[in-house]
Amino acid sequence: MSPANQPTFDLEAVIKRRGFIWRSFDIYGGSAGFYDYGPLGTALRNNIVSVWRNYFVNQEGFAEIDTPNLTPHEVFKASGHLDKFTDLILECTTCDASFKADSMFSESYSEIAREITIEALRPEELETLILEKGVVCPDCQGNFKTPYEFNLMFKTTVGRDRTAYLQPETAQGIFVNFQNLYAFHREKLPFGAVQLGKGFRNEISPRQGLIRLREFNMAEAEVFIDPEVNDYPGFDNVKDLDFTLLDQHGAFHYCTTEEAVTDGIVCHRALAYFMGVTQHFLLDIGVDSEKLRFRQHQKDEMAHYAEDCWDAEILMEINSKESWIECVGIANRSCFDLEQHMVATGSDLRAYKPYAEPIEREVERLKPNLSVIGRNFRQDAKIVQNHLASLTPPFPDRLEIDINGELKEITPDMYTVERATEKINGIRFLPAVIEPSFGIDRILYALLQHSFNVGKARDGVDSENYNLLRLKRSVAPVKVAIFPLFNRAGMTDLALGIKASLRDSGIPSQYDESGSIGKRYARMDEIGTPYCITVDHQSLEDGTVTIRDRDSTQQHRIPVDSITEIVEGLLSAPSAVDAFGRLSE
Amino acid sequence: MSPANQPTFDLEAVIKRRGFIWRSFDIYGGSAGFYDYGPLGTALRNNIVSVWRNYFVNQEGFAEIDTPNLTPHEVFKASGHLDKFTDLILECTTCDASFKADSMFSESYSEIAREITIEALRPEELETLILEKGVVCPDCQGNFKTPYEFNLMFKTTVGRDRTAYLQPETAQGIFVNFQNLYAFHREKLPFGAVQLGKGFRNEISPRQGLIRLREFNMAEAEVFIDPEVNDYPGFDNVKDLDFTLLDQHGAFHYCTTEEAVTDGIVCHRALAYFMGVTQHFLLDIGVDSEKLRFRQHQKDEMAHYAEDCWDAEILMEINSKESWIECVGIANRSCFDLEQHMVATGSDLRAYKPYAEPIEREVERLKPNLSVIGRNFRQDAKIVQNHLASLTPPFPDRLEIDINGELKEITPDMYTVERATEKINGIRFLPAVIEPSFGIDRILYALLQHSFNVGKARDGVDSENYNLLRLKRSVAPVKVAIFPLFNRAGMTDLALGIKASLRDSGIPSQYDESGSIGKRYARMDEIGTPYCITVDHQSLEDGTVTIRDRDSTQQHRIPVDSITEIVEGLLSAPSAVDAFGRLSE
Repeated sequence: MSPANQPTFDLEAVIKRRGFIWRSFDIYGGSAGFYDYGPLGTALRNNIVSVWRNYFVNQEGFAEIDTPNLTPHEVFKASGHLDKFTDLILECTTCDASFKADSMFSESYSEIAREITIEALRPEELETLILEKGVVCPDCQGNFKTPYEFNLMFKTTVGRDRTAYLQPETAQGIFVNFQNLYAFHREKLPFGAVQLGKGFRNEISPRQGLIRLREFNMAEAEVFIDPEVNDYPGFDNVKDLDFTLLDQHGAFHYCTTEEAVTDGIVCHRALAYFMGVTQHFLLDIGVDSEKLRFRQHQKDEMAHYAEDCWDAEILMEINSKESWIECVGIANRSCFDLEQHMVATGSDLRAYKPYAEPIEREVERLKPNLSVIGRNFRQDAKIVQNHLASLTPPFPDRLEIDINGELKEITPDMYTVERATEKINGIRFLPAVIEPSFGIDRILYALLQHSFNVGKARDGVDSENYNLLRLKRSVAPVKVAIFPLFNRAGMTDLALGIKASLRDSGIPSQYDESGSIGKRYARMDEIGTPYCITVDHQSLEDGTVTIRDRDSTQQHRIPVDSITEIVEGLLSAPSAVDAFGRLSE
Repeated sequence: MSPANQPTFDLEAVIKRRGFIWRSFDIYGGSAGFYDYGPLGTALRNNIVSVWRNYFVNQEGFAEIDTPNLTPHEVFKASGHLDKFTDLILECTTCDASFKADSMFSESYSEIAREITIEALRPEELETLILEKGVVCPDCQGNFKTPYEFNLMFKTTVGRDRTAYLQPETAQGIFVNFQNLYAFHREKLPFGAVQLGKGFRNEISPRQGLIRLREFNMAEAEVFIDPEVNDYPGFDNVKDLDFTLLDQHGAFHYCTTEEAVTDGIVCHRALAYFMGVTQHFLLDIGVDSEKLRFRQHQKDEMAHYAEDCWDAEILMEINSKESWIECVGIANRSCFDLEQHMVATGSDLRAYKPYAEPIEREVERLKPNLSVIGRNFRQDAKIVQNHLASLTPPFPDRLEIDINGELKEITPDMYTVERATEKINGIRFLPAVIEPSFGIDRILYALLQHSFNVGKARDGVDSENYNLLRLKRSVAPVKVAIFPLFNRAGMTDLALGIKASLRDSGIPSQYDESGSIGKRYARMDEIGTPYCITVDHQSLEDGTVTIRDRDSTQQHRIPVDSITEIVEGLLSAPSAVDAFGRLSE
């Protein structure tokens, strides 16, 4: 792997000065874990999101929905986030600093972190470890208090007294809509639903800029599949992609998508398919292929809902150190979430599939005794009924059910065991979920790092630090800049007219009349604008202008009348170099 | 004004069944004030937002930024929201129901609400009124408890102990970035910044579906202008628009934008300009021009930050009653917000303008005595210095400054009064802000109501309630549907191929092979799909398909080879009727 091209110091300055990213609430002293996107950052983010939508909504045909950030307590109780979405926190007795335990270890006690998965420890295990190894506060060498678990969700109150949380992921809003989505897709699997929204995590002490945000941009797809079918439509379209894989045992594999599946490295074809789509997408928007790999989660680092997970990791420079940063997680969430919500609500969140041939069989089943159940369970009777209906032989001797955290017995007078011959036409089952989940902010920051170059003087601009941002045309915030060579009525009018007509066609364009042409090119190169158009003396005579390519600095003359057409062609052509070269023909 | 076309009951059913809007957390019993956008609703919302961006970002050239939903306490303390962003709440002693006082009055005591602006009352005034008029709970006729003020912001904690709120408007994220934005615009006014995001308001008891949400979609522009210039670039482009205006005295005016200004009905040309842009936008996306008016806020209903405000109101049916609903507010926020944040932070949030000719004058000013100020005010010394620098003669006898809510004296030993001759080249001043603020959810709901028709049988589909949604092409969620006449290999393949190639060109398209062609047309008419393409026998022979227009049900045959081109032409043509008619040529 090659190191990052440049010291990021220059990039950080450009990012702030040119309006990509600002510290939030800066005039109030800022607030850790919050950043603003300035005008160029927002445009870049919107463009990334728009390419993402083209992949997942337009091409995959997934349904985009939009559900609230504020989510009632009950949903996260069922999803497990209330109990398990926590960080282990260390607080110093001396200087009062707080640390996320795993981050503190990997930064200051990396030799221990390499041996032990810190986030998998219970607080008392962590305390023992700290005493054994003599771990102290990296800021002041003070001792730590007893470690504790801290829930990462922001809590608030809706109305007068309903507890709610800001969503830590957009996924739950999709799961609780499973019935609506299943009906929308006319009850056929597989189908996918996506959300593009915010996630919120109350990180105790975020110290990594855009990499660890308390409020962040997510793009998530939840793909509902039949858990018995280890395949996915369209797999063949990605089967020949070359992957760099790092499995949970620490072994590297360099292979194709198909080999990854046949060699048993990636256990589900749907998982492998979305790893392929993810790689396509990331390279398409400009991630450096040398700085991308997929790493499988180890068993003890997996989220509470995941059965398997592969992260797309991107090599970046964070706090002056090169690190592989998780930017996309592609998880097999199995039936976990739907099952949890089904148990919590008593709603049937299963899908149905008919058998090819109906099956006749003798069955034993538990027929609920409604009156007894009703008397004993009242408003929870339906949950008990569903539970009984979901049981298949062999039945346990003692039946129990968890109702709001309390284990209650279902006594034998509440059901009878029936034996019958049934013709079974099909089966209801809980779909499994494959989830590609994208952290847009991290991806955006990776793009900026991978695109940033500090080069030599160009176009006569004398500088030791000529900043050039080689963003892909599809994501560049400004597509075209238009300059009049001089501030003269004829030239400025024509240039402003060109800007207006490009904007009318929806092409983000900027006009600049200030400074030398070289300086204006430099300004645009620094923010990644692919094309600059200059109106000069000749333009007023023959109606042509120059158009300059950012990367080669080559220029061609083109007629004013067909600028929009030409620019649209350049922006949509598969190859920037070929398209520009062809202009001279 | 014409009444709404149809009982909304049918529309509500369509909205849910077809996947426009769902009740949030439905399987958990729902949560008042929260709605989900399903797949079609999300697409419709995204299309509305995309047209909005074209108006405000692309055409007006405003900078889109994106700042966090979670905002620190200090920001809303300064902006006045902590103290003044409240509702008057009435709680019943008997049935415990809660009401927003003004809504309760306008629904159940409308004769009183017409005379008195309920939201302008203090709690004790409201209590007197209730006793005087014998006002009781509309649900149970019980008496009310003492009214109280309830802050509408959702409160939470960031990190271990920092109080933060979910933003009730996106505007503050723009104001606190004024310095960054001013630099981005190379220190020239006017300029605008926009945000497209969520707003959050903890309504005590929301009872109006999509009209009163606790979490909602906003599109806001904050336009920074020189308060001394009563003009706006581009005013001439909107000067001939016809307005329906209802001023704060209750008088109607039917006039053009220009007349509204020259007759003194709308007092600022910038305000009138953005009322014009707003009307353009709303009619463009399909609001019925007969159901749109602008109403000026009365002095006592204005938000705490507003000096003047005109609402774009749209006529809708809410809870079986026709009402004019505020969908856009176009406010003159004057210098209020920038001034508040400047005082709170000590940051200079002023703009600068040079005089045409420098002015020489004798001035008196307060020269800070830095050492004394430093000794007395320590870390707040800069705030005191800025305060002294901002004062102009005549100076008060006793100088005071508010520091974190505490009034402190600036004693005479902290400054000297200087007299000097100055050449003044220009002036620093606080810009004023014109704010067009759009409630996207309400606008979307209005579009659905104004577009919905229940008609007669069409295309052989026998129905008393043929649902037709005449959405504009620009906002329709699905642009084209493709049907094979029969489920035969040749036809289905060709139809699927057409869908794929339309999607490759970014045109949202759906394939449907189920049911009669008439039923498939009906399905698409119900969700507003403008064009349906059918692959039939002839298609397999001569490579042509039929394309049908939603509104006229007319059909033309077009060649498969140029479908994408033809559809792109139809979608972008100024007139749907003309463009479709021309296909037969």
